[in-house]
Amino acid sequence: MMAGRTVRTLGEFGLIEQARRRLTRLSPGGGWRVRLGIGDDAAVLQGRRGEPVLLACDMVVEGVHFTARTPARAVGWKAVAVNASDIAAMGGVPVAAVVSLGLPPTTPVQWVRGFTDGLARCARSCHMALVGGDTVRAPQRVADVAILGAVGPRGPIARRGARLGDRLFVTGRLGGSMRSGRHAAFTPRWREAQRLLRRLRVHAMMDLSDGLAQDLWNMSRASRVTLRVRAALVPVAPEALGVSGALHDGEDYELLFALGPADARRVPRRLGECPVTEIGAAVRRGVGVELEYPDGSVSPLSARGFAHFGEALA
Amino acid sequence: MMAGRTVRTLGEFGLIEQARRRLTRLSPGGGWRVRLGIGDDAAVLQGRRGEPVLLACDMVVEGVHFTARTPARAVGWKAVAVNASDIAAMGGVPVAAVVSLGLPPTTPVQWVRGFTDGLARCARSCHMALVGGDTVRAPQRVADVAILGAVGPRGPIARRGARLGDRLFVTGRLGGSMRSGRHAAFTPRWREAQRLLRRLRVHAMMDLSDGLAQDLWNMSRASRVTLRVRAALVPVAPEALGVSGALHDGEDYELLFALGPADARRVPRRLGECPVTEIGAAVRRGVGVELEYPDGSVSPLSARGFAHFGEALA
Repeated sequence: MMAGRTVRTLGEFGLIEQARRRLTRLSPGGGWRVRLGIGDDAAVLQGRRGEPVLLACDMVVEGVHFTARTPARAVGWKAVAVNASDIAAMGGVPVAAVVSLGLPPTTPVQWVRGFTDGLARCARSCHMALVGGDTVRAPQRVADVAILGAVGPRGPIARRGARLGDRLFVTGRLGGSMRSGRHAAFTPRWREAQRLLRRLRVHAMMDLSDGLAQDLWNMSRASRVTLRVRAALVPVAPEALGVSGALHDGEDYELLFALGPADARRVPRRLGECPVTEIGAAVRRGVGVELEYPDGSVSPLSARGFAHFGEALA
Repeated sequence: MMAGRTVRTLGEFGLIEQARRRLTRLSPGGGWRVRLGIGDDAAVLQGRRGEPVLLACDMVVEGVHFTARTPARAVGWKAVAVNASDIAAMGGVPVAAVVSLGLPPTTPVQWVRGFTDGLARCARSCHMALVGGDTVRAPQRVADVAILGAVGPRGPIARRGARLGDRLFVTGRLGGSMRSGRHAAFTPRWREAQRLLRRLRVHAMMDLSDGLAQDLWNMSRASRVTLRVRAALVPVAPEALGVSGALHDGEDYELLFALGPADARRVPRRLGECPVTEIGAAVRRGVGVELEYPDGSVSPLSARGFAHFGEALA
């Protein structure tokens, strides 16, 4: 029965799909145009004059994304960093953000100071401004950051552009992000993305938040090609429990990107300090994700990453 | 002792002031410029080319801004409308918004559908797009909308531009917004603001969210002029308990604006269906808000409007 269904049974992707169907017919005001709407890391909007802009938001909630014991400064850093990562994933440059903060009245001012310091430190390291926000009373701490980004001449890069024959790459090393604390201290990869775009023609890009396996499914669905990853190539972080952790832990905030075979040979092995690793290829038309085991056998790769509402994942 | 202070004792304005001091030294990336940062209804950002854009956000929380009994559609409408009102207050036109939604997994899908309908209806009525967002698990429902706005040739209008001798006006009728349900069903006044700006030179403008008395203080502090309001002129909504309700109830989402005496004579008494009323003037340099009683006596006007954290208001 429809009326009895809950968010848990529908799941995050069901929610987004439902919203997309209801909201995509709306058109923007002020003479603007939507170049890319709901469903990517950020929306792409184009004014009458000037360059396109990117717009995205990400919410972090106490008890879900952080606990009462997480240092306030880490919460602030993460709230900005996850948004800057969304801009990076589109091939954009962070410009400015606004922050909505819900707080219980009993929150120590000290906590707010630490949180604000975290926001400011991340913003400074990304060379972006914090230009406004909203503070409201809430039963538990919740922060939402919305970010405006600029697009360079080679952007924006959507997640839907992967083509048959493309090679797949990731930045950094994956897995163990929650255990190691990296999930709240990472450096968004927008500078790496900019370097990449200056040299190469990237077809599709996204950031890794739900776990490589789940995010491969997201790119595959958007691009309608089957992505095959070789287990032996996946760069595993020292804090991760092997390839499985690298595939499923989530919260990596590294980049996953696809480009043609000729350009693939020109991808550098490092972008600054950051390693770049080829992990697989787009092997067939149609949606699918496959894992090639070290023994050469190939199996479908389950998406089981982070389920926001406890729903079953594909 | 500093470490023992809470958000309740510091209050919303203390929080904003603290954040402003910590965050204003940050500069934006991508060749952009901050024309107006923290402290107004929206930030004003200017790209290398093209028109300036407005950026703002507003959060609504279950148990604070709405209850479990508030129709989901009204929650969705309000979440977009309060943001469009911020854009209106800057003399801007809504372009597009992103929505972050925190939900308990037990939330009925029916509720999400109603909420999304409310978002879409308000967005359509404001001629703006909804282009993305984030859905996360949360202990109670919380929605944050961030909005991008365009600025016409006559904008943006800040709240800090009121000058000595300016006349003060409000749109609509004030008070009783929560009781009447108007707080979640109002029409953002951006069309009215655009009409006004086409004809007249508005010096300062803001929207009324915290109650006329509190918002007069906000404009006075920003403009550094003393604002005097005549009680007999304040337009009282039929649902309000007299002038006191119109001054302090809050959640009106009407416009308060200031312009010079010559332009004041040319302000129309209606903008479309919406009444426009002269309520007072900027009478002295320096921060202050005064109420002129019907008997001609003048007293300082207390700000006691909506205290977000239960703090004492000036």
